[in-house]
Amino acid sequence: MLPPTLAWEGEVPGRVRLLDQTLLPGEIALLEIRTASGMADAIRRLAIRGAPAIGVAGAFGLVLGLQEEDVPDAAALLALGRRTASFLRATRPTAVSLVRGLDRTLARVERESAAGAAPDALRRAALAEARAILEEDREACRRIAEEGSSLLRDGQGVLTHCNTGALATTGIGTALGIVLHAHERGMRLRVFVGETRPLLQGSRLTALELRAAGVEVTLLPDSAAGSLLRSGRIGVVLVGADRIARNGDVANKIGTYPLALLAREHDVPFHVAAPIETIDPRIAAGSAIPVEERGEEEVLSLGGRRVAPEGVKVFNPAFDVTPARLVTGIVTEAGRIPAPDEGRVVEFLHRCGRARE
Amino acid sequence: MLPPTLAWEGEVPGRVRLLDQTLLPGEIALLEIRTASGMADAIRRLAIRGAPAIGVAGAFGLVLGLQEEDVPDAAALLALGRRTASFLRATRPTAVSLVRGLDRTLARVERESAAGAAPDALRRAALAEARAILEEDREACRRIAEEGSSLLRDGQGVLTHCNTGALATTGIGTALGIVLHAHERGMRLRVFVGETRPLLQGSRLTALELRAAGVEVTLLPDSAAGSLLRSGRIGVVLVGADRIARNGDVANKIGTYPLALLAREHDVPFHVAAPIETIDPRIAAGSAIPVEERGEEEVLSLGGRRVAPEGVKVFNPAFDVTPARLVTGIVTEAGRIPAPDEGRVVEFLHRCGRARE
Repeated sequence: MLPPTLAWEGEVPGRVRLLDQTLLPGEIALLEIRTASGMADAIRRLAIRGAPAIGVAGAFGLVLGLQEEDVPDAAALLALGRRTASFLRATRPTAVSLVRGLDRTLARVERESAAGAAPDALRRAALAEARAILEEDREACRRIAEEGSSLLRDGQGVLTHCNTGALATTGIGTALGIVLHAHERGMRLRVFVGETRPLLQGSRLTALELRAAGVEVTLLPDSAAGSLLRSGRIGVVLVGADRIARNGDVANKIGTYPLALLAREHDVPFHVAAPIETIDPRIAAGSAIPVEERGEEEVLSLGGRRVAPEGVKVFNPAFDVTPARLVTGIVTEAGRIPAPDEGRVVEFLHRCGRARE
Repeated sequence: MLPPTLAWEGEVPGRVRLLDQTLLPGEIALLEIRTASGMADAIRRLAIRGAPAIGVAGAFGLVLGLQEEDVPDAAALLALGRRTASFLRATRPTAVSLVRGLDRTLARVERESAAGAAPDALRRAALAEARAILEEDREACRRIAEEGSSLLRDGQGVLTHCNTGALATTGIGTALGIVLHAHERGMRLRVFVGETRPLLQGSRLTALELRAAGVEVTLLPDSAAGSLLRSGRIGVVLVGADRIARNGDVANKIGTYPLALLAREHDVPFHVAAPIETIDPRIAAGSAIPVEERGEEEVLSLGGRRVAPEGVKVFNPAFDVTPARLVTGIVTEAGRIPAPDEGRVVEFLHRCGRARE
């Protein structure tokens, strides 16, 4: 059993305990984070990753920032909060949950400040909001897992990508949560995981979570997904999302789009599992989603050793965009959006009371 | 300038010098191979790789086998040759050039044995045949490079996969030979190369050859090819082949099939460059091509360090099959086969006088 992805210790002032995911599966080490810049560093270097988890981490990072400075009044605390949120927001641009976690925590501080609360009360309010975000994420995962398990069949081969489990959230996970929930209820699944270059979240994290739960897991180079799908061994492809546009286009870990195309070619359903907050109605289409480009050393070196000659360039986007027409359905905590397009996504958000976010 | 992929030193008895490609790009080391089993080991561990190169290596490996034992007569030498060929043939099952190199060298020994030659004359005949195979490979590469360069346009982005250059052949290469030839003639190309997990032939070998020639090269994780093609930066995809079925299906390095599917999705031409001997008319369709599965440690470990938890399985096919309908054309030393299908492939082989092979 792994320690929690993220936990707050104490009240205000308090600190965050993070499981350092860069060292998994070989080493289980906890980080103690006491400052917003410590949190920003942990997010940037992927000590904590996964869209829902960094949404929660951002909110707690803001709480840390608010307790770092003595301020004369609420206005000064609010200004500090805005600076901290802006700084944390810039760590990773693609996952909208980070933006949402920060905006929501900051809005709570703004509201209570407008109502006349003093700095310490505002810090406690921010912590309460961050805790609420964490609890809601946990609950969203639970519901996604229940909602999604009807997509699976006993004995089926499931292909997933990157890590969307407990390590990517503060609950059971999204796409992987569905698999783990179905397994707990006695369904026998054979799970296939792309290793997920360059940082191997599939090999390091997803394989770890699945083996810990006793699920059969087979790793493959990402490039072998075509052969696997052609072999007929996969009944469903199940992935997470970092941001979903209003038209249903899905930004997710690099390599997701080729999987979706292969799934269509082989008539295999391709499902995306994500909390509703992953849907960003302000973004009309996937082409407008900001895609993070990561450092070239992730591709040029392997285990600290240079593998490529000098003088080469690198193309290393962390995410890609899968067009909505390749998505069989989106599983959320409030139900599914089948064959997503703008009409269905907007209608769904209206139904959930989330259209104006 | 790298040493030659493979060279024979001396006459009979002689030995093979191989560049150990497993140590590139960091270290340039030559192996001296004196026995057929030494050659088998070099082929199996990919010290020499690339379909054309292992075709030549197999032939010289057979010559090494023939000089390892004293035999009383031609019949005993022929029996030794058959055992050695069978042993070498089993090292890697997918590339048909290995089978062809061995069969052809053995057939020469059989012919001259039937004509009454003594063991030493037979050994010299085998060496002459292996040398002819090497020279023909070199010449086929040269012609493929000329034939294929009309597919490229100045300023174009070219996507390739694995290594199909001088290191994969005994000449300038196949798909990469086209690029290198066009570059030598002054065409400015931007070449994008998938790193080619698990053994990183793209990062280690193709990037090395391109940089040595002064070509601009950008590496990407294999899973980023979808984003790259969507970006519009690629004008043509150019790959090699390990075996081509009678219907035009192409077996090549794992990850080729997803590239072909992505190329079609983005209306980018997808060309395969290979010597005619890569076409195997005895194989009706790609599903009948034997695909090598390689060891799980290639996926479970990175630079000698285990990256996955215990208890996981691995799916690690070295090759995949691209259906002919996704192939824009096949470039050979005797011209191109556009939109390959059984009719066009068989007609092409007839025209080249190779239909009965």
